[in-house]
Amino acid sequence: MADRVVGSVEDRVVGVLGGGQYGRLLSEAASRLAIPLVVLDPSPASPAKQISAVSALHPSLAHVDGSYSNESDIDALAKRADILTVEIEHVNVQALFQLRDRYRTTGGHLGKGIEIFPSPESLEVVQDKLLQKKLLSTSNIPVADFIDLPTPTSESVAQAAKTLGLPLLLKARRQAYDGRGNFLLRDLTDAPRGLRTLNGPIYAERYVPDVTHEVVVVLVRNVKGEVESYGAVENVKSGKIGHLVRAPLRQGGKDVANLAQSLAEKAINSLGDGAVGVFGVEFFLRANGTLLAHEIASRPHSSAHHTIEASETSQYENHLRAILSLPLGSTELKVPSAATLNLRATPESAEEVRSVVRRALATKGATVHLYGKKETPGKADSPKGRKVGHITVVGPSDADVNDRIHQILNSAFSDDPLIPKPPKSHPLPLVSVLMGSDSDLPSVRDAARILDQFKVPFEIHIVSAHRTPTLMVQFCKEAASRGVRVIIAAAGGAAHLPGMVASESSLPIVGIPVKGPTLDGVDSLHSIVQMPRGVPVATVGINNSTNAGLLAVRILGTTIPKYAVAIEEYRVNMERVVLEKGKKLDEAGWTWKLEDKQ
Amino acid sequence: MADRVVGSVEDRVVGVLGGGQYGRLLSEAASRLAIPLVVLDPSPASPAKQISAVSALHPSLAHVDGSYSNESDIDALAKRADILTVEIEHVNVQALFQLRDRYRTTGGHLGKGIEIFPSPESLEVVQDKLLQKKLLSTSNIPVADFIDLPTPTSESVAQAAKTLGLPLLLKARRQAYDGRGNFLLRDLTDAPRGLRTLNGPIYAERYVPDVTHEVVVVLVRNVKGEVESYGAVENVKSGKIGHLVRAPLRQGGKDVANLAQSLAEKAINSLGDGAVGVFGVEFFLRANGTLLAHEIASRPHSSAHHTIEASETSQYENHLRAILSLPLGSTELKVPSAATLNLRATPESAEEVRSVVRRALATKGATVHLYGKKETPGKADSPKGRKVGHITVVGPSDADVNDRIHQILNSAFSDDPLIPKPPKSHPLPLVSVLMGSDSDLPSVRDAARILDQFKVPFEIHIVSAHRTPTLMVQFCKEAASRGVRVIIAAAGGAAHLPGMVASESSLPIVGIPVKGPTLDGVDSLHSIVQMPRGVPVATVGINNSTNAGLLAVRILGTTIPKYAVAIEEYRVNMERVVLEKGKKLDEAGWTWKLEDKQ
Repeated sequence: MADRVVGSVEDRVVGVLGGGQYGRLLSEAASRLAIPLVVLDPSPASPAKQISAVSALHPSLAHVDGSYSNESDIDALAKRADILTVEIEHVNVQALFQLRDRYRTTGGHLGKGIEIFPSPESLEVVQDKLLQKKLLSTSNIPVADFIDLPTPTSESVAQAAKTLGLPLLLKARRQAYDGRGNFLLRDLTDAPRGLRTLNGPIYAERYVPDVTHEVVVVLVRNVKGEVESYGAVENVKSGKIGHLVRAPLRQGGKDVANLAQSLAEKAINSLGDGAVGVFGVEFFLRANGTLLAHEIASRPHSSAHHTIEASETSQYENHLRAILSLPLGSTELKVPSAATLNLRATPESAEEVRSVVRRALATKGATVHLYGKKETPGKADSPKGRKVGHITVVGPSDADVNDRIHQILNSAFSDDPLIPKPPKSHPLPLVSVLMGSDSDLPSVRDAARILDQFKVPFEIHIVSAHRTPTLMVQFCKEAASRGVRVIIAAAGGAAHLPGMVASESSLPIVGIPVKGPTLDGVDSLHSIVQMPRGVPVATVGINNSTNAGLLAVRILGTTIPKYAVAIEEYRVNMERVVLEKGKKLDEAGWTWKLEDKQ
Repeated sequence: MADRVVGSVEDRVVGVLGGGQYGRLLSEAASRLAIPLVVLDPSPASPAKQISAVSALHPSLAHVDGSYSNESDIDALAKRADILTVEIEHVNVQALFQLRDRYRTTGGHLGKGIEIFPSPESLEVVQDKLLQKKLLSTSNIPVADFIDLPTPTSESVAQAAKTLGLPLLLKARRQAYDGRGNFLLRDLTDAPRGLRTLNGPIYAERYVPDVTHEVVVVLVRNVKGEVESYGAVENVKSGKIGHLVRAPLRQGGKDVANLAQSLAEKAINSLGDGAVGVFGVEFFLRANGTLLAHEIASRPHSSAHHTIEASETSQYENHLRAILSLPLGSTELKVPSAATLNLRATPESAEEVRSVVRRALATKGATVHLYGKKETPGKADSPKGRKVGHITVVGPSDADVNDRIHQILNSAFSDDPLIPKPPKSHPLPLVSVLMGSDSDLPSVRDAARILDQFKVPFEIHIVSAHRTPTLMVQFCKEAASRGVRVIIAAAGGAAHLPGMVASESSLPIVGIPVKGPTLDGVDSLHSIVQMPRGVPVATVGINNSTNAGLLAVRILGTTIPKYAVAIEEYRVNMERVVLEKGKKLDEAGWTWKLEDKQ
């Protein structure tokens, strides 16, 4: 093909139903790989069309101005594409079914037929929340109890409330997203209002009162059924101008993250062979540590915007790779910590959004994405406002990312639940300091002092190998998945704590031998340092918790440059102090300090 | 302004002279920030124009089809922009001077006048290599000796050769880039051919034979004179289909990187107040460790493509921030290691480029950028081919990045100098194993075995605190900047090596006490573990170099997930082995193994 772009590996044209922010970010990824992409959207100025002058490079191609609900508009898109995909679920699925039949082997840009990913079958399920729930349930994925209300009347609602209790959630089956289509029924007398509000096919769902966190897993699946998952993230809702997503998930430890990932994979596989592309699966994490699957999205997800800056391959590029049968890209995080602030704007809050953007431009590690939505039309996607952009923040630790988010949100957001308040122990620690009992506190105080001096986020806990062995095992199991990178443990006498912690955790463990009433601490030193082959403890000198703190900072400094710089300064300063003392001695002679003692 | 994009902080329009790959990547960055950007380029299908349908969002704006050498075309661009910038140096500078005078306070898109960054003054110097050299030289920045040849004749060349020696470099003052405009004169009889080839104003430069590496510093400067630098990188030339850039610089240690950075800053400041935007400064690193400044580029640089995926703010976004007086973004690397393969294609090598791209899509950490250049026109920017795209690879260590690059280049490139050959010690080590003398080798062998088993790139050296103190200090000073993250040191008896290394380096040091002929190793243990406050050594048990290796792997595992996973598996496996032995004992009873001894 003489007219190809140098290096391009794909001649087929991708047609996208919808030209909003997801379409825009798909288009950005397509341009980088020289994949031709055309967009169907009512507006010629839609976000996706703004950044693709597709006919400049391919004179035979152009975007389509039309509706993804309209059959003939979809057909117009199909005529100039070979692979169709969606950036929004609420498209005309019946039109897609017919179109697939019509163009099975002919038609499309190259004339060889059209493929649709995700398949109309999977889109049909995702569009209907009741079908979703039924599918999840029959696939043995835990969901909140629910009851179909095929004839939605006050009586059938009352009947459902008998089984599911009050308050009760009434939910629209279709066109439900971003909080729309939900009605929380607290009292049966409210049923008529609920039915009027939702106005269409609905079902009832048990209200789950003890949800502590929202967990989302975004994954990509290809035609061969291979799945790559972007690990679980936390979706922190309810900010004034948007919501925050944090990656990786720190809530509930590794077990919750692994469970969410495997349930999400099961959920997507249950959609059938045609479930190809990027999907998001939302979960509720309950106080008892269990997960309930909540909702599936069959497109790139706002909980994975951070993958553009934070992952080895973005969800947008991976969606294109999946639907084009190119190799799936690595979904690994390439930075230790990331968060995304999804920006919403109403006509009233536009100025506030702008000042958040201004602060983001002055914040380390922040990247701003604006979607090119004009202030004027003001058509709100929901009462909370339109999605107008997002800001991703990356950093070498959760604590750094948190500080940066805080700087961006500023005081306007200080009452916002997005920001954890710092208690005595840092909520996002990099170092965990452990002692067997409170009487050991003096032995670890200097380590804490060093960590504080170097501004390392740390926590301090009492955990005993002999008196609280269960707590110790639990602590060790979760430490790494909570973001802890080094554990410092102090012990005296038989001094088992550091070694036992090293046996139960894969992190580097720094051991401080504490001097007891007998044996001058040599007992603890030998107990800590003489570990069997296979289980190392990084032992420092007897009672030398200063060095334990410094060792932890040096370990962090191998990947967080500011700590390496600070250690360097600390060493230079130590040298200076000693040289100054030497100078004083030179001046005062050998009698220096003799007087003090007399 | 009612028609603004929600969140946008800039109403001024940026006009770019040139629509090639740099313009394209500037346009990508502009779209994310909703900064209106128009492009002047002869081709309506130029790379930058392909990804910006600017009039979709701004009906009054459109790109200009025309030449950046043509005065009236530049004027057409100026009429629809407020800030002009360049993506290529070889623009009509005289037109820019006139234009700035004409539109000082009126004209432009907003009617308030036009600013030009970088200034025509600085572009004028950068366009002329002789002016560049003179400026660098008068600014006390070391350059190769040079002589102006205002009347270039064989006689004046012979005269220059008397001073500068042979071989001698003859260099064109203008339109010289990508190796064009250089003639290496080996023999004076070749002078007429050299003059014919260069055909225009030239100068002569001393040939520097002992250049070992090319070092590049890219930095960004704003109107206030604030400068942020992207740290030095290595430019590895001479691949078959392009050249490779590695970040951060590992050659020559921290001193060379710091020196390059400060010289680069000085060079840009010497261009005057109008030196605003992104600049690249190229250096030669000589065998004796000194640097020679070679060339300045006054635009985003191919040695900083990696900043898109690897840095907190890309050079493209920072160029826009600088010329628009927005806050400069952080230039810190957000990943430990990165490399960019800059792809070139001739009509013959297009298929090879495509297969490199295919392999990149299947390689972890790789991101492909194609520039949308068609195969057909085939207008080569240089005999080496057109720049058609680049592939950036990021990873948790230099060794990982190297493996990934190797996978992309494949056997087609195996004879390529881009890839260091692995000797016994890994050329890109994460761990350095030190011993005082070869007799200590048995004491560190198990550490090496563990590092090998966990596939950790490591090196092993003899460095003695007492016998080679100078070497030790030098080694410690350079270790971190060479990419080493942990040092393991073994010593017996007075056992000074680990502690002295800890005093000279800020890395975490793991100490192995070696058992000597007397005192059972307690002497070495105490010498290593009982360090003074301020200088920690992570001490393991006597002769337990297995644990030293494992401790190093655990430290790396805090930020390189594969090592954490491997340690987890190692621990599970240890448990399994012991449980199996227990089972055997259960079956055999207390007499088990008794027979063996009898």
